[in-house]
Amino acid sequence: MLIGDLGEAALLKELRALFAAADPDLPTGIGDDAAVINYPVGAQGVWTTDLLLEGVHFKKAWQSPYQLGRKSLTVNLSDIASMGATPRFALLSLACPPATSLDYILEFCRGFAAMAAKTGVVVIGGDTTASADGITISVTLGGYIPKGDAILRSGAKVGDAILVTGFLGSAAAGLRLLRDARTGIYPELEKAFVDPEPRIAAGKAAVEAGATAMTDISDGLASDLRHICEESGVGAMIEPGLLPYSMDFADAVSKYSWERESMLLSGGEDYELLFTLPGDIAQQVKALVAHQGGIDVTMIGEVMPLEYGIRLVDKAGCVRTMPEHGYEHFSGNI
Amino acid sequence: MLIGDLGEAALLKELRALFAAADPDLPTGIGDDAAVINYPVGAQGVWTTDLLLEGVHFKKAWQSPYQLGRKSLTVNLSDIASMGATPRFALLSLACPPATSLDYILEFCRGFAAMAAKTGVVVIGGDTTASADGITISVTLGGYIPKGDAILRSGAKVGDAILVTGFLGSAAAGLRLLRDARTGIYPELEKAFVDPEPRIAAGKAAVEAGATAMTDISDGLASDLRHICEESGVGAMIEPGLLPYSMDFADAVSKYSWERESMLLSGGEDYELLFTLPGDIAQQVKALVAHQGGIDVTMIGEVMPLEYGIRLVDKAGCVRTMPEHGYEHFSGNI
Repeated sequence: MLIGDLGEAALLKELRALFAAADPDLPTGIGDDAAVINYPVGAQGVWTTDLLLEGVHFKKAWQSPYQLGRKSLTVNLSDIASMGATPRFALLSLACPPATSLDYILEFCRGFAAMAAKTGVVVIGGDTTASADGITISVTLGGYIPKGDAILRSGAKVGDAILVTGFLGSAAAGLRLLRDARTGIYPELEKAFVDPEPRIAAGKAAVEAGATAMTDISDGLASDLRHICEESGVGAMIEPGLLPYSMDFADAVSKYSWERESMLLSGGEDYELLFTLPGDIAQQVKALVAHQGGIDVTMIGEVMPLEYGIRLVDKAGCVRTMPEHGYEHFSGNI
Repeated sequence: MLIGDLGEAALLKELRALFAAADPDLPTGIGDDAAVINYPVGAQGVWTTDLLLEGVHFKKAWQSPYQLGRKSLTVNLSDIASMGATPRFALLSLACPPATSLDYILEFCRGFAAMAAKTGVVVIGGDTTASADGITISVTLGGYIPKGDAILRSGAKVGDAILVTGFLGSAAAGLRLLRDARTGIYPELEKAFVDPEPRIAAGKAAVEAGATAMTDISDGLASDLRHICEESGVGAMIEPGLLPYSMDFADAVSKYSWERESMLLSGGEDYELLFTLPGDIAQQVKALVAHQGGIDVTMIGEVMPLEYGIRLVDKAGCVRTMPEHGYEHFSGNI
């Protein structure tokens, strides 16, 4: 069955059934002109949105529709996580050509719903429409946080330690494997690109631990660290030898003669968290964040005065400036 | 200057400046991973989203980018209005080909910002990306309403009067004029399609007046009335002779031999409000809603028992069933 034959009304009925939710904080969900939601008392709302286009952000051949559904929510969960907030309400819009199969859309939505259920998110609304060519996915995600607790990009202080969750470069490596049609060799690297895990628990743990600034690594470490430095009015020193990567990454880099450091610094879509903590407590709370977040945390450098700039300093004392760019959509990276 | 030459970072800088807002309820706006917002105490959130695609929902030749920006917000404002709520926070995502001119995008955003300013809305976030072909606009809009006051589609009661704001068919007529390249003859009809007015004040007035069910007429009266009937478990009797239309509409229908009734019943995108009120107070409060809403309100029929179905009954007593369909995106109406 194709979407174009099914018609909008029948498609909406399928989607309503799939996303049906009984939630005490959702008095009116999908099916009216707008959703009505309750907000927790004493909390602030935290909202983000992402647009994913076929051919720009994903290709159908790279992942199952189920994985694509999960990732469409995850990229937004990552933004909520990077504020230290709790995700709660999602709106999902889909544009697809009439020749798209209903099965593809339903599998996509099942993946989206599975990630939503796993993270306590309910789908409260959305929109569907025909497109001339290619699938477009727009997701808006709302969460909440106790008033004043949100960790912004602007709070990093000179002397803070710079930390990162998980591994860097895995998603960039996965994308490269998919583009080079070297699939099935390093499934974990592929998964890092097509089906990353949102770091919600780690984000909350970073709030508890007293993080001063936080962002997610969607554009690559170089770009996202620059965002923190610009917003905080500081510089940064990163020790490249401390950048965490997986054994599979090391193996693939060596096998295919990839540029390791460039992938670690500028590879996008890792969806790990990058955050800063007062230097004197960093070592102690690092373990706490790792424990509560269920993911390793690595100290990779230190916040420096603005005039220092952003530099890479290796153990031998060799100093370089951080490369300028990460992931740039308008220069057509994928 | 083209978007593709400018690059994403520079574009974001332009958009940030354009949408910069000092708002006490927006502690963190555009520029972080997510926005942080305050919610009014005792209120519920009301959220909606719409996706607009070039070639499906609009063509560049049909309106200025400024008008397109206004309408992109208005179609969402209309959903918030139809709940009786107050719009407040918008997220705007844009995908456009690298060959799009920066001027076009900035004019679009100026139109969006102007409609936002007019309606008390602040832009709290968004996303930009390159597209292979065509502009895609995704808007999510949040508002609020005192707890329990939202007017749903499901509250219509047998015996209620059925009312509509403004004129029907104007947008359908405007679209037809644009498609037939008969522009400049009926500017009000064209405006109804390319730059409709959101009925926010009328929506709030309908809440005050005790409306039992409400929706906006985005898919056409036939479809949107059916939504109310289905959700409320009722039928409806509409008197076609009472359907309100403008003098320009009558003139154009007569000049071009269009099917008047079909355009009034099934023409989409009017963004007027369709609501029900207890029959015994309808006549009195109609004037109140019209006064507070700044727009004429017309009684067009009555809510009937479910088994009655949805019928058209003219003054002579001739009975017909309501046509099934309004605006169907997947059947490619535009």
